[in-house]
Amino acid sequence: MKSFNRIFFLTIIINFGLVMGMYAQKLTKEQIEVASKRALPVAVENLMEFLKIPNDGNYPDQIEANLERCVTIFSEMGFKTQRLETNGAPLLFAEKKYPKNTKTLLFYMQIDGQPVDTTEWHQPSPYLPVIKQETANGEWEIIPYETHKKPLDMDWRIFARSASDSKGPAMSFISALRILENLGKVPEYNIKAIMDFQEELGSPDLPEVVEKFGDLLSADGILIMDGTRHLSNLPTLTYGARGIATATLTFFGAKNSLHSGQYGNFAPNPVFEASRFLGSLKNEGGIVQIPGFYDGIKLSESEKKKLNQIPEDLDDIKTELGISQPDNVGETYQEALQYPSLNVRGLKAAWVGKEVRTIIPSEVVAEIDMRLVPESDGKRLMESLKQYMVDYGFHLVDSIPTDEERATYPKLASFTYKLGSKPFRTDFDSSMGRMLNRSMTRLFDDKFVNMRTTGGSQPIAPFINTLGVPGVALRIPNPDNSIHAPNENLRIGNYLEGIISCLAVLTEPMD
Amino acid sequence: MKSFNRIFFLTIIINFGLVMGMYAQKLTKEQIEVASKRALPVAVENLMEFLKIPNDGNYPDQIEANLERCVTIFSEMGFKTQRLETNGAPLLFAEKKYPKNTKTLLFYMQIDGQPVDTTEWHQPSPYLPVIKQETANGEWEIIPYETHKKPLDMDWRIFARSASDSKGPAMSFISALRILENLGKVPEYNIKAIMDFQEELGSPDLPEVVEKFGDLLSADGILIMDGTRHLSNLPTLTYGARGIATATLTFFGAKNSLHSGQYGNFAPNPVFEASRFLGSLKNEGGIVQIPGFYDGIKLSESEKKKLNQIPEDLDDIKTELGISQPDNVGETYQEALQYPSLNVRGLKAAWVGKEVRTIIPSEVVAEIDMRLVPESDGKRLMESLKQYMVDYGFHLVDSIPTDEERATYPKLASFTYKLGSKPFRTDFDSSMGRMLNRSMTRLFDDKFVNMRTTGGSQPIAPFINTLGVPGVALRIPNPDNSIHAPNENLRIGNYLEGIISCLAVLTEPMD
Repeated sequence: MKSFNRIFFLTIIINFGLVMGMYAQKLTKEQIEVASKRALPVAVENLMEFLKIPNDGNYPDQIEANLERCVTIFSEMGFKTQRLETNGAPLLFAEKKYPKNTKTLLFYMQIDGQPVDTTEWHQPSPYLPVIKQETANGEWEIIPYETHKKPLDMDWRIFARSASDSKGPAMSFISALRILENLGKVPEYNIKAIMDFQEELGSPDLPEVVEKFGDLLSADGILIMDGTRHLSNLPTLTYGARGIATATLTFFGAKNSLHSGQYGNFAPNPVFEASRFLGSLKNEGGIVQIPGFYDGIKLSESEKKKLNQIPEDLDDIKTELGISQPDNVGETYQEALQYPSLNVRGLKAAWVGKEVRTIIPSEVVAEIDMRLVPESDGKRLMESLKQYMVDYGFHLVDSIPTDEERATYPKLASFTYKLGSKPFRTDFDSSMGRMLNRSMTRLFDDKFVNMRTTGGSQPIAPFINTLGVPGVALRIPNPDNSIHAPNENLRIGNYLEGIISCLAVLTEPMD
Repeated sequence: MKSFNRIFFLTIIINFGLVMGMYAQKLTKEQIEVASKRALPVAVENLMEFLKIPNDGNYPDQIEANLERCVTIFSEMGFKTQRLETNGAPLLFAEKKYPKNTKTLLFYMQIDGQPVDTTEWHQPSPYLPVIKQETANGEWEIIPYETHKKPLDMDWRIFARSASDSKGPAMSFISALRILENLGKVPEYNIKAIMDFQEELGSPDLPEVVEKFGDLLSADGILIMDGTRHLSNLPTLTYGARGIATATLTFFGAKNSLHSGQYGNFAPNPVFEASRFLGSLKNEGGIVQIPGFYDGIKLSESEKKKLNQIPEDLDDIKTELGISQPDNVGETYQEALQYPSLNVRGLKAAWVGKEVRTIIPSEVVAEIDMRLVPESDGKRLMESLKQYMVDYGFHLVDSIPTDEERATYPKLASFTYKLGSKPFRTDFDSSMGRMLNRSMTRLFDDKFVNMRTTGGSQPIAPFINTLGVPGVALRIPNPDNSIHAPNENLRIGNYLEGIISCLAVLTEPMD
């Protein structure tokens, strides 16, 4: 009995120690940094292995190989995985529960990458990752394998497709989970992960998955492991993204292109009508003139103050872009992003340059995009644009006008639109927002950026809008990362800070 | 002696008869028609042989082969020929004098043709001419060689590159000369011919030739064997052509194309500024708003009356073009052609359709053409446009703006222009005009069209403007001839009437 008791108590003590070890943290800043730096070489190796699997979403075989690798990675960490089948490509779900945890964090990861033009890459293949250092004259040169095994320089970069967008961020999170495990710690949350293999194709099946697997995906917060840091390259949290809607306007002239000599002065050139119309859409300050376009958006002084804490200089941005004065929609760059935008993203009539021909074009095509914020419903704004065209005097058709329509209406155009990703925005002051701010402050003091919204779109809105889960993006990659372009890269120092950030979040409880 | 005298008198009588036969015409309408119809099958064969020689002005070998054929043709008819060398491609000059003639007619012929896209032609090659007939369902089917040797149907057509533009018209003239020769007649004029082998490239060397070989080319009138008939397909004389000048306008936004999410509402989109500017160039009625654009043009009531004698119906043209109302520059189509025109012939910013990208375009390119009349100097109008841009507020640069210019000027654009063919116009009431009218009336009564100007351009102005030779175009081909396009064709009936017209002109003295 004695020995039994001894063993029994010893067991309790050991268990108590384990329990204390497992549940008695936050880790300190120092603990996180030491552990992360020690783990970095392996984390880099793991990322480079992951980057070797081609991941163009247009090729189902490539996607399948990535999905299988993700199953292996998460299974090895004790996660249960589940393929979520859709009418299109599958998504992968992974989950791990911890007995004492009551709250759940869902991590969204993008695994697919943009298509590649291998001829434009300064390395053997976008899928054979290399580490490079910057030379004195600003070029990037490959560091031989033996050399880059030595202590990693924080300014070296990993060059490969998806290094930044977004296998690097995904692997930051995975590395943080492994470090925690090796430290004998568990996170403050039950963990769910959803892996998207069609983000670069617009995640067409994500809304369906969110509808169909709502219970499975429910969580107290979603952390989006995607997106590039603020231009300052400070660690960045973005609480929202603008949505997008697109339209195609075609302005019709004569039935066919006409010889400009034979019919110049007689057959109306639709370029002039289209120009007058497009020019009327904004005033000289860039303010959209469609009635109601900015309805519903109010920025309080305190919100403006918070927005404008972000360290950016208007003159610097103007110089960077090469413009003399910005549009007047907001007083600062960050304020401008809080409003919906209207952009003519493409415009074409006949040909220019070497292909130019002396004709009167038969039509003008204008491609429009609108960036949306939560206050501006895409359908409402598109219908406003349509009404504005009608009020302007256009007779609108769905496709090619009939001869009778051509004979009847001097102002003739077609208008079609599509709604894309929806906007979302999570409150700075939500429990998710507060938890993330505590995590980041613990590691970076006030040297990080809180952005109310990013100007671009993320296909993540169904989680926030359909499931009501507050979502924030943790942005890791350096702003000069060339995502979507040749020679995409991720700075080693950013990758390390990404791991550190994930460790801070995983060990910071939500109130 | 007797036999000598007999022979001598006989010779005189024969010579007198020849002389009477050679100089005692005009030919009657009936004589011309009978001779032309008899000669038509051979004339068709000759044209088809000529069309077999490829004639793309971009290929010097092709041009040389055509030039050599022309030398042969004119030498066989007793012409002296002379290559006119230039800094570019040569032209060919041919001349034949007749002892009693005091006046000289110069015939301008275009021998080169537009490039071909052989895949779009419904025959083995654009350079293997075929004769086709229209089927009941409006298709054109090839007539086998044996069949088309039978009596020629006037509605059959010869399909080949340059059938209408302009080997067909050239061969009409050559055929008329041969018929005259076979009838034992001589023309009322000394004949000069100038053959252009770069018309489709804009005849860049023609002004130089006219300067250099002015004496050689001097004449009492020039007949331009080029251009398509009026839409009515009545025989057509055009007394002028509009000139052309072109400009390229580039409107600058940010230094590079920008992500429309990241910078939408902040970086100005140059499409809006360019649109407002282009839209301001014309009012809703199509009237150019640049001050002085229409200066100097006055149409008297009698000129309007003459212009509007041309058999055309405004509603028919509107229906044909598919427009509900024309620009208001003239009250009729013919009046509109008497004014200079301003046309945006191409417009482009970024991409549309399948290539569309969600960016803010960095620039907008607008290609402009102006059609000129003798009252409107191209340089004056282009400088007016430039001044209009400056007055509108644009800072103009010659090429790409510097960073400093980008930082300084919110309205930034480049403007360059080129002057092309000059306009010309010959008086209806000139001796050349009266002679041509008598010729045509003799053959067609009042069933032909006198056009004051054609809307398009012809590179012929140096003859009229530099040498002071009155020039008129005799237009032969059917208006639905698909020149510059695949399946170019010439109606047999038009070819015959072309030969007939040339015979009428050659036998009609000038007063």
